[in-house]
Amino acid sequence: MPAATDTNLSAVLYSVKNLRLEERPIPQPGPNEVQIEIQEVGICGSDVHYWQRGCIGDFVVKAPMVLGHEPSGIVSALGDGVKHLKIGDRVAIEPGVPCRMCDWCKEGKYNLCPDITFSATPPYHGTLTRYYVHAADFCHKLPDNVSFEEGALLEPLSVGLHACRRANITLGSHVLVCGAGPIGLVSMLCAKAMGASKVVVTDISDSRLKVARDMGADGTINVGGKEPKALAAEVIALLERAPNSSIECSGADASIQLGIYATKAGGTFVLVGMGAAEVKLPLINALVREVDVRGIFRYANCYPTALEMVATGRVNVKPLITHRYTLEDSLDAFETARTGAGGAIKVMIHCGRQA
Amino acid sequence: MPAATDTNLSAVLYSVKNLRLEERPIPQPGPNEVQIEIQEVGICGSDVHYWQRGCIGDFVVKAPMVLGHEPSGIVSALGDGVKHLKIGDRVAIEPGVPCRMCDWCKEGKYNLCPDITFSATPPYHGTLTRYYVHAADFCHKLPDNVSFEEGALLEPLSVGLHACRRANITLGSHVLVCGAGPIGLVSMLCAKAMGASKVVVTDISDSRLKVARDMGADGTINVGGKEPKALAAEVIALLERAPNSSIECSGADASIQLGIYATKAGGTFVLVGMGAAEVKLPLINALVREVDVRGIFRYANCYPTALEMVATGRVNVKPLITHRYTLEDSLDAFETARTGAGGAIKVMIHCGRQA
Amino acid sequence: MPAATDTNLSAVLYSVKNLRLEERPIPQPGPNEVQIEIQEVGICGSDVHYWQRGCIGDFVVKAPMVLGHEPSGIVSALGDGVKHLKIGDRVAIEPGVPCRMCDWCKEGKYNLCPDITFSATPPYHGTLTRYYVHAADFCHKLPDNVSFEEGALLEPLSVGLHACRRANITLGSHVLVCGAGPIGLVSMLCAKAMGASKVVVTDISDSRLKVARDMGADGTINVGGKEPKALAAEVIALLERAPNSSIECSGADASIQLGIYATKAGGTFVLVGMGAAEVKLPLINALVREVDVRGIFRYANCYPTALEMVATGRVNVKPLITHRYTLEDSLDAFETARTGAGGAIKVMIHCGRQA
Amino acid sequence: MPAATDTNLSAVLYSVKNLRLEERPIPQPGPNEVQIEIQEVGICGSDVHYWQRGCIGDFVVKAPMVLGHEPSGIVSALGDGVKHLKIGDRVAIEPGVPCRMCDWCKEGKYNLCPDITFSATPPYHGTLTRYYVHAADFCHKLPDNVSFEEGALLEPLSVGLHACRRANITLGSHVLVCGAGPIGLVSMLCAKAMGASKVVVTDISDSRLKVARDMGADGTINVGGKEPKALAAEVIALLERAPNSSIECSGADASIQLGIYATKAGGTFVLVGMGAAEVKLPLINALVREVDVRGIFRYANCYPTALEMVATGRVNVKPLITHRYTLEDSLDAFETARTGAGGAIKVMIHCGRQA
Repeated sequence: MPAATDTNLSAVLYSVKNLRLEERPIPQPGPNEVQIEIQEVGICGSDVHYWQRGCIGDFVVKAPMVLGHEPSGIVSALGDGVKHLKIGDRVAIEPGVPCRMCDWCKEGKYNLCPDITFSATPPYHGTLTRYYVHAADFCHKLPDNVSFEEGALLEPLSVGLHACRRANITLGSHVLVCGAGPIGLVSMLCAKAMGASKVVVTDISDSRLKVARDMGADGTINVGGKEPKALAAEVIALLERAPNSSIECSGADASIQLGIYATKAGGTFVLVGMGAAEVKLPLINALVREVDVRGIFRYANCYPTALEMVATGRVNVKPLITHRYTLEDSLDAFETARTGAGGAIKVMIHCGRQA
Repeated sequence: MPAATDTNLSAVLYSVKNLRLEERPIPQPGPNEVQIEIQEVGICGSDVHYWQRGCIGDFVVKAPMVLGHEPSGIVSALGDGVKHLKIGDRVAIEPGVPCRMCDWCKEGKYNLCPDITFSATPPYHGTLTRYYVHAADFCHKLPDNVSFEEGALLEPLSVGLHACRRANITLGSHVLVCGAGPIGLVSMLCAKAMGASKVVVTDISDSRLKVARDMGADGTINVGGKEPKALAAEVIALLERAPNSSIECSGADASIQLGIYATKAGGTFVLVGMGAAEVKLPLINALVREVDVRGIFRYANCYPTALEMVATGRVNVKPLITHRYTLEDSLDAFETARTGAGGAIKVMIHCGRQA
Repeated sequence: MPAATDTNLSAVLYSVKNLRLEERPIPQPGPNEVQIEIQEVGICGSDVHYWQRGCIGDFVVKAPMVLGHEPSGIVSALGDGVKHLKIGDRVAIEPGVPCRMCDWCKEGKYNLCPDITFSATPPYHGTLTRYYVHAADFCHKLPDNVSFEEGALLEPLSVGLHACRRANITLGSHVLVCGAGPIGLVSMLCAKAMGASKVVVTDISDSRLKVARDMGADGTINVGGKEPKALAAEVIALLERAPNSSIECSGADASIQLGIYATKAGGTFVLVGMGAAEVKLPLINALVREVDVRGIFRYANCYPTALEMVATGRVNVKPLITHRYTLEDSLDAFETARTGAGGAIKVMIHCGRQA
Repeated sequence: MPAATDTNLSAVLYSVKNLRLEERPIPQPGPNEVQIEIQEVGICGSDVHYWQRGCIGDFVVKAPMVLGHEPSGIVSALGDGVKHLKIGDRVAIEPGVPCRMCDWCKEGKYNLCPDITFSATPPYHGTLTRYYVHAADFCHKLPDNVSFEEGALLEPLSVGLHACRRANITLGSHVLVCGAGPIGLVSMLCAKAMGASKVVVTDISDSRLKVARDMGADGTINVGGKEPKALAAEVIALLERAPNSSIECSGADASIQLGIYATKAGGTFVLVGMGAAEVKLPLINALVREVDVRGIFRYANCYPTALEMVATGRVNVKPLITHRYTLEDSLDAFETARTGAGGAIKVMIHCGRQA
């Protein structure tokens, strides 16, 4: 365990487009907490959004905030009362810690806890740092056959899993996934792992659609410039029947319309991607066919299953990682994530000290 | 059983605003069907809509069609194979008969059957007639303490029940119902019968809100001219917490927004009333709080429970009926239903022959 | 707030049939805890069982333990961090506090938490005492119209509510409740509040069945000396159809058999009462008719709804209380609870100091 | 289409151990029915049971009855109204046709329909015949890549699927399957296809357990001579945690006890195999841990998904077939199925005419 006086390199967002590397004090674990020597952190679209805009909806960066919330690492110190972990354990960190006392927490929907502290959501610091302290029960021990990079990817994988659960995907489902970015791809992986018979993925980028096919999509459609109703017919033809479940991960209005038109009567349409604050959409089409429209907010009770999916080889998330940087090169990493240059899907930052 | 050559007075819609009374042949029951001597038929908003517009969405009246789909009557003839009914039985008629063979039928969602025949939905004739033939198993025998008028009201009551089921209302729910017309009122009654702790009803008519309070609403709000977000705060204050479930029965854009803003995170928002084909709404607010947005299309497996609610005295639907006419006076009845004159809520047409 | 040196009269079980009143130190609240001046505590069958046998299953009283776990009281001191309560608040105490960190806690099934601390379950002390300390978020504030006695009764009412939820009772259910003791009666009350159309209650005591009818049972059957299959036919006749849900609260083998034979195919049979460790029962009859057999272990997320049921007047639990004692007279209270003398249903102990 | 006067070789059970081959009239399809030229029929344990005992529970063979209910074939004639099939279509036949009118049918639980006609369940004839007539909507069209043998195996596969659905198996489940006969094996296949992380299969035959491993079981245990509680510990160790779901397919008392002891608190225990009419079991252990005990009766809405599982290659059922006979050699086939000689798992009878 490093002394509390050691320095702790961190990627800190000071204000819009003002991301700096700086040394910070090393935090010490309290009761039921552990200190983690961070190894890998994936960059999420929301990290880029905070960097470029300084806010997401009502969450506004008002004070310097460490970015990053897709972390894995090594347990480096134990707080009082921690039993299921020991120093040296390799873990994935589930970045949200709820209050454990409100109705939502008690009913198993802790993602909706109004007092949740979530890494890199203002005012809480994130994980792009050498040492981080977290509630021990939200650190999930990695088996030997799961790498730190895969551990970091459990975060987006949990988003996909929660989306698929909310979409009621089950054995035999036919599924439409709109958008072949990281969340669309993990949603596709989860849908297949849950037993979906067929998953069709859409995007406007042929190269992303190729990745989708390589990772297991049964069919893909480039939706660029096409009309939603015609696209719905194309989706249904490719799936051989209307999808029971559709998951929208692109945030594009046309895709939202596509999802409504395509989904089978009695089915479920989950929106993960968010577009404008107000959207104009053919909601009545969904309503009269009893297509449920559901959003997701992060995830609850998904990390353990996401971890098992990876550990058992049921899903292979490694192809998501297209670029790798060190913590010292964080600004380059963010620039790559922002531009998507070089076909970037998931940019991973290695936070361990260089040998 | 009347001879097949007897005349059969019926209210037939020929075209827009062209509703006529005429004699039609008396239909005879086939296998597993019964002939019903119709007693009471309530007028629904959709009957008025067909009369005034000639269509609802994709359903267009192309040939003369008998109106009416909220019927009760007396069994007057039995087709082959009918066992659970006998001549003279008093029944409520569930007006939709599905194909019984498609996936939706086999999975218990027969309201979504694409081949359902539903009374007074083109091209199928309705029940504003002396004699009507229907599938026997969709005729529900009334106990002695349930009147023909109450039997007719099982149809809108089933809509309210289906809405409340889709809204996940249960013991202890706090509920918002937007709109105090017939469907809003039966939804309020069903919510209370399901154990809701508190139900608040909104409308723009004080007289309708008074009816809502008289029928059991725990609170009411006249929403006229108020802003949705402020209204949401008012609803939450009156319910003492955000509603788990909201049911929108008015079709007004402002009410749809109110429902989204007011509903508790993790709750359910059911839209029964339909407004414009495309609506502009703050859907993201619902999505990020995991408020499910659900429509309803008629109902399935609701009549037996609706009947028991009335038979056991758990709900009192009689106050819904404000006006009564005979079949011969159907045009006056429709005019009253159209204008809402005299505080009309539910207009009932007696179809039995005058003594 | 009383000084920590004040005495704290408590009813302490030392060993089998060895219940003593003694002074104990007054406990002080830690973070997120409150100190409660206990007002009323109901005696539960398990309290009597510990007193008479010294154990329930694997739970063995190995050290002196305060009895009682159906408490209400007044907040007398606040620990750090408590926000939703203040000194003087009247509260019902939900007696089980889970670990908040295991899978069951995170998934909303905190009653199954293996590390739960539950009042008067060894080795944890109960609430038959003047001052008690408890997690603040498991203290439920009572509105003015709910008495301390009603607050204490929220505990058995929560058991009945959990049983009814597990039994899938909903609007229109027909329900069989076996046993008219406190749990049978609260299960009947909850079933009615959830919208059950008809509830039939059985017992071998006519006086208990009279209480059941007085409290709202739609029908009762004295099962003494009758054969289970014949009884099932009698239940079905009285309910007019087979019960969707049956709740067994008597622990009698014959009642367990009755529940299996009577329940409708596809329905649910919940066993609350426990008989012998191994039972011989016609399980196949339940299995081939897809009647689910489910137990309950206490409750989770039931107190808030139980409280609202009482506060809104939806249920009246007061008739359950047949006998009242003071803390000083606890031994008499337990003797009454043990023998059931005088038609005892629920025996209540007042723990407040006598003026 | 063969003339109605052609002969129709069939395997007819006359009485206990009295199975005869005889010519019967060729049946003609009525409205919404099709005539099928049967190709393959698997022998089920219940066929053998009727042959050896003349009854299963309350179902008694009182008149000569054709055996067999796991069929596939070719459409050879169409009744009126049939639209989704044409002559020459290859189909799997779902052998139970419900009344379509009762509550269970309308609610999607048609397997519980009291008036269902199920092939080879007295008094209804089975499918071990050249020509068979069936409701067209219960004939599922086979794609080209699914063989007639696989089509026949959809019947037991549907049993396994229904068992897994009732067991709430989902992505990440850990599962115990007791018994490595045909139903145990298909349950294991379905559990894996639904995303179970680990499935352990038990049996008393090492050769059957080898088949289980070859077909995908993650672990196996020979339970012969071991004590249930010790076995439960062994299962939990092999799965690395207690199973969320256990499926009992052996009918052995010791396995039923194992399932109860092993299943995780809050989990589900499904019993498919049936032992004695009354079983003595540690039910309390299940009840106080809220382990739901559920049976299954055939299946509903499973054939379409079972077919897709096979068509998409998600499961491979072919290894189940160990022996093949012609209709003419049915008695030999039944003898093999009865004795299990030669490691028999599934015995298939080819019913097509020999060239």
